[in-house]
Amino acid sequence: MSENKTLIQAFKETALKTNGHGNRDAGVLKEAFDRIDYDMESDMYGSGKVIEAFQEKMAKLLGKESAVFFPSGTMAQQIALRIWCDEKGLNRAAYHPLSHLEIHEEDGIKELHGIETVLLAEKERVITLEDIQNMKQEAAVVLLELPQREIGGQLPDFETLQAISAYCKEHGIKLHLDGARLLEVLPFYRKTAAEICSLFDSVYLSLYKGIGGIAGAILAGSEAFIKASKVWKRRHGGDLISLYPYIVSADYYYDLRADKMEQYYYGAKELAEHYNICEKVSTLPQVPVSNMFHVHYEVSKEDLEPILVEIYENTGVGLSGYLRETGDTSCYYEVSIGDLYETIPEEKLKEVFNTLNEKLKAI
Amino acid sequence: MSENKTLIQAFKETALKTNGHGNRDAGVLKEAFDRIDYDMESDMYGSGKVIEAFQEKMAKLLGKESAVFFPSGTMAQQIALRIWCDEKGLNRAAYHPLSHLEIHEEDGIKELHGIETVLLAEKERVITLEDIQNMKQEAAVVLLELPQREIGGQLPDFETLQAISAYCKEHGIKLHLDGARLLEVLPFYRKTAAEICSLFDSVYLSLYKGIGGIAGAILAGSEAFIKASKVWKRRHGGDLISLYPYIVSADYYYDLRADKMEQYYYGAKELAEHYNICEKVSTLPQVPVSNMFHVHYEVSKEDLEPILVEIYENTGVGLSGYLRETGDTSCYYEVSIGDLYETIPEEKLKEVFNTLNEKLKAI
Repeated sequence: MSENKTLIQAFKETALKTNGHGNRDAGVLKEAFDRIDYDMESDMYGSGKVIEAFQEKMAKLLGKESAVFFPSGTMAQQIALRIWCDEKGLNRAAYHPLSHLEIHEEDGIKELHGIETVLLAEKERVITLEDIQNMKQEAAVVLLELPQREIGGQLPDFETLQAISAYCKEHGIKLHLDGARLLEVLPFYRKTAAEICSLFDSVYLSLYKGIGGIAGAILAGSEAFIKASKVWKRRHGGDLISLYPYIVSADYYYDLRADKMEQYYYGAKELAEHYNICEKVSTLPQVPVSNMFHVHYEVSKEDLEPILVEIYENTGVGLSGYLRETGDTSCYYEVSIGDLYETIPEEKLKEVFNTLNEKLKAI
Repeated sequence: MSENKTLIQAFKETALKTNGHGNRDAGVLKEAFDRIDYDMESDMYGSGKVIEAFQEKMAKLLGKESAVFFPSGTMAQQIALRIWCDEKGLNRAAYHPLSHLEIHEEDGIKELHGIETVLLAEKERVITLEDIQNMKQEAAVVLLELPQREIGGQLPDFETLQAISAYCKEHGIKLHLDGARLLEVLPFYRKTAAEICSLFDSVYLSLYKGIGGIAGAILAGSEAFIKASKVWKRRHGGDLISLYPYIVSADYYYDLRADKMEQYYYGAKELAEHYNICEKVSTLPQVPVSNMFHVHYEVSKEDLEPILVEIYENTGVGLSGYLRETGDTSCYYEVSIGDLYETIPEEKLKEVFNTLNEKLKAI
């Protein structure tokens, strides 16, 4: 047991991990391509069987007329907002202050598309109907992220979604779904993807989160919308000659995991309970509504790190590879349940959390 | 022999082809990944050994301080021009009227970046020093494409490149190289990639043309330039969580083919001679200066198509899968020599071109 081992080192060396589907390594690609013939033709600039078949499958899943594969959600969502802004002749989009567009994209929406943003709701909570009714400036489009990732993956209830959708329709505001983790929230809502998406004019779905592909995204909507999005995809430099490495793996892991979202969701609820028993620990949300949640510690990063390293080394179970400070005596990390969680014996988990609880009490 | 067979069908069924490295199929990826271990770690949003090592290798090849991997050349080049325009505070870039940016990108440079363009030279010829000296409007950056693909892959001589470079430097105009096919022109210039690139402030190299990877591009330049390009890459939605499917294959095929560019170049010169012997046929350029050229026919597409189909079926050699009309009685296609050309026996080629010549004479 080396006390100097970093958290990420110790985490990587654990045989069992509560989060994810496994390492992001070349094995992910190789496994997906094992079943693929050498002579499977590549897609060519958005055409060809491999891309068209997957797009049709995703359009059907999402209950939309059409869908297009994008290399990234960043690209797909900027383009969705641009199309709706152009249609209305109003360069303003509204979304949550912790939206991916606001904090992870170097202001692409503003720098590339000249779209101003209206930030809805306080950072700590999800968007309500009232936030949209009380927008200070008119917007062409509202983006809702389900679940709201940066606050632990919280969700509005379904009735709120319906009310927001009706309000936007009535007021000529387009509604776009940041459904990066859409499949992951279906068990909570007890709805199909198409039922959720019917409330939205356009939808983005990520293919490497709950699904666990390599990269890539789907954008879905009306035929006219998707046709326009393909022009913008070309402009963005996203209309690659070949996207099949991502498409084949997205399709493979979709088939493998689409029906496991309920298992991940129950796993998240169970794991959150383990955390919430510990002193100085709370999960956000307290009861997860998807496969994800955040774990907040009222302990400094410096104090927590050696405790976690010791637990990882003694139990062989890894909880997180990083800690993000939220203050001098607080920090957090994100948990997303995937295939790995169920490989951990219940006894092991109890041992981990008993130890964690004791160590935290002792601080 | 079915007379109704389309050109593309007949072409696909030929056992031998004069162009390219082989089919764009999943085998390209599977071959590249055969030598890769399952546990090779993915790159993560531009970091990690697999992407950093390849970027360093390419920076060294191109003689630049730094390089970054992009999913597409479209994205890389728009960003290069944007950086140079921002630096000068002048949103104007100059390039050839048949530049990729002007005809294949749905005006992304204008629509996303608000950059106006100055078109240099007539469509039929390459850019000269005089074109740049006589620009009607000031530009922050000039883009030169080597070779000029849409006119058969023509090149200015090296002295012209040197003169343009010196002029631009003197007049505070940045010079960007569209080197999609840079490696393919090195045998003609008898220069290293770094020697050519030393004349340019920034360079783009494609990884799926002569090299034959799956997709992707390299952008190279100074450290400050590349640092700025990574911010724009994020904005464009090109900073994917994992780009390794393209990087691993680019690296594999680069190693396989970088030293074969001279072979491809000689092949192109030889094949062009075969074409130029035929009546009603001429290649552009007459003597290729890279692995590529265009084949122009003074024959209508309708008349030529059945002739080619018959030749493909009788000889098993495919020349092109398409014909592009240039007038009522003229058409052309593009040839790019790769690994396949040398697999065709000399006797076969003679048979093909004797037949082609006879058939064309008989029209």
